[in-house]
Amino acid sequence: MSTITVPDTLPSPEEDSQRLRKAFEGWGTDKKAIIEVLGHRDSRHRAAIARCYSLLYNESLLERLHSELSGDFGRAVTLWTENPSERDAKLAHEAIKRKGDRDICIILEIACSSSPEHLIAVRKSYCSLFHSSLEEDIESYFACQQQLKQFLASVVSSYRYDGDHVDKQLAKSEAKKLFDAVRGKQPCHKDVVRILGTRSKAHLKFAFKYYKEEYGISIEEDIECNSSDDKKLTSIMRVAITCLEYPEKHFAEVAKNSIVGLGTDEESLTGTIVTRAEIDMKLIKEEYKRRYNTTLKDDVIGDTSGYYKDFLLTLLGTN
Amino acid sequence: MSTITVPDTLPSPEEDSQRLRKAFEGWGTDKKAIIEVLGHRDSRHRAAIARCYSLLYNESLLERLHSELSGDFGRAVTLWTENPSERDAKLAHEAIKRKGDRDICIILEIACSSSPEHLIAVRKSYCSLFHSSLEEDIESYFACQQQLKQFLASVVSSYRYDGDHVDKQLAKSEAKKLFDAVRGKQPCHKDVVRILGTRSKAHLKFAFKYYKEEYGISIEEDIECNSSDDKKLTSIMRVAITCLEYPEKHFAEVAKNSIVGLGTDEESLTGTIVTRAEIDMKLIKEEYKRRYNTTLKDDVIGDTSGYYKDFLLTLLGTN
Repeated sequence: MSTITVPDTLPSPEEDSQRLRKAFEGWGTDKKAIIEVLGHRDSRHRAAIARCYSLLYNESLLERLHSELSGDFGRAVTLWTENPSERDAKLAHEAIKRKGDRDICIILEIACSSSPEHLIAVRKSYCSLFHSSLEEDIESYFACQQQLKQFLASVVSSYRYDGDHVDKQLAKSEAKKLFDAVRGKQPCHKDVVRILGTRSKAHLKFAFKYYKEEYGISIEEDIECNSSDDKKLTSIMRVAITCLEYPEKHFAEVAKNSIVGLGTDEESLTGTIVTRAEIDMKLIKEEYKRRYNTTLKDDVIGDTSGYYKDFLLTLLGTN
Repeated sequence: MSTITVPDTLPSPEEDSQRLRKAFEGWGTDKKAIIEVLGHRDSRHRAAIARCYSLLYNESLLERLHSELSGDFGRAVTLWTENPSERDAKLAHEAIKRKGDRDICIILEIACSSSPEHLIAVRKSYCSLFHSSLEEDIESYFACQQQLKQFLASVVSSYRYDGDHVDKQLAKSEAKKLFDAVRGKQPCHKDVVRILGTRSKAHLKFAFKYYKEEYGISIEEDIECNSSDDKKLTSIMRVAITCLEYPEKHFAEVAKNSIVGLGTDEESLTGTIVTRAEIDMKLIKEEYKRRYNTTLKDDVIGDTSGYYKDFLLTLLGTN
């Protein structure tokens, strides 16, 4: 469900490296060439180019991009070129240190919208980069927020069963447990933490579907209607559930929020497009259109400009 | 620190497969040949032989071993031949279902004495084999034992930083937290669970060393002296700490306990020798000698017999 377009006949990593090198040399950087090369290569190819570039020119492609490019365009291109697990480990690390509302969402996105394989790769990268584990830093930085900390540590530590098998009776009984917690205004009840933190996505999707059928309201809406005193926790549980059930809904919302109002939240917009382009951007674009009656493409055109705009549109497959 | 001996000139996987096939055919199984081949191959070679055997004879080597061999010898050989992460996933699954004291130790051994890489491999195998995750099954099967469940879920879910870097100030302050919990007879205090469940082994070793220097007693002994009302929890925390700090001490103790008294606990003896032979059996043997004034080899000779004895001694590198 990727939106990037890769040419049928692909240049070799050597050719791509040479083209990038040429783009860096001379007066100014040839940003168009950078978009043409990196914007049309999937993560495997980008990794091959980075390896080859480093061998050919004895410098890191990522560092060269850092020094050549700046602003939103520079950030988008370097995030895109970085190894996805290292990129997400760094995003998680920044988020843990800042601890803002959007930061907590970033941690949830990585924990709940990634495949089990990718989440483990992120945790490995995190240990290599920061000399500590992801769960360890969450425990330290959120030490004063017991319930939040427990929930975040649980979702980042999971290695969920990734298959289709669902014990339907169990899923139904757990839908009831979730319902009791939501109606009891206890969004962080230990059953909720356990269910959301360990069950497979197939199991959770079945439980959420049953919740809606049985109680006539989706669990996300029900959480909103039964908001506990801790508005922040309520909103965090809603985000986690959406990320687990329909990540495309969550990311369409993040993209829209980054665009609406005065000024653009480029960090969120870039993060959403770069991290999801190769995963579920087709679904995000469809959801965006259905929900907001406008296309993500048109909104990006209206809100961004220059090479930054061109690069985002390239990743959206509409440039 | 492996104790198995591998020949300098190794036969090819084809040759080994042919030799095993020959050992299975004809009147009775040639158990000596099985020990000579499999007992002298490391895990990478055994995996290559299993792949090759399956291609050559269109049957699973493991299943054939199951049907050819029985008793303690059969169990030891099949455990040894199985992929280590699948073997440990199955051991964990059996242990979770049985929930006895020794079973809880098996879960702790896998969680606390494995490298982060191996623990993740076990969790992956667990999901593939049982349609659920390791942490999910712990949450379900130990649902009525809140503190134990929380601790076990925490240690099996960790992906610890595996390097040498230690924040010494932090480790000292956490040694104090551990001390307070131990003296307060709260072996499962949330700080203890967090520290033992997330910190790197280097960090924990430093903290335990500081504990002994500062308070004049090792944390393991201190836990024993300050046993809480829940004797079981106290003992579990002690086992976890030993497995994290000096796995060889724990496994020497398990091996000794499986041998002393009337009758042998073959399951524990086999499990210890098979799962640790390629990891730290040299250290376990040294620890055993230091602690019990006898050798593991002599105790195995005194307590076992036949091909089972020969196979264990082969894995101990002393046959």
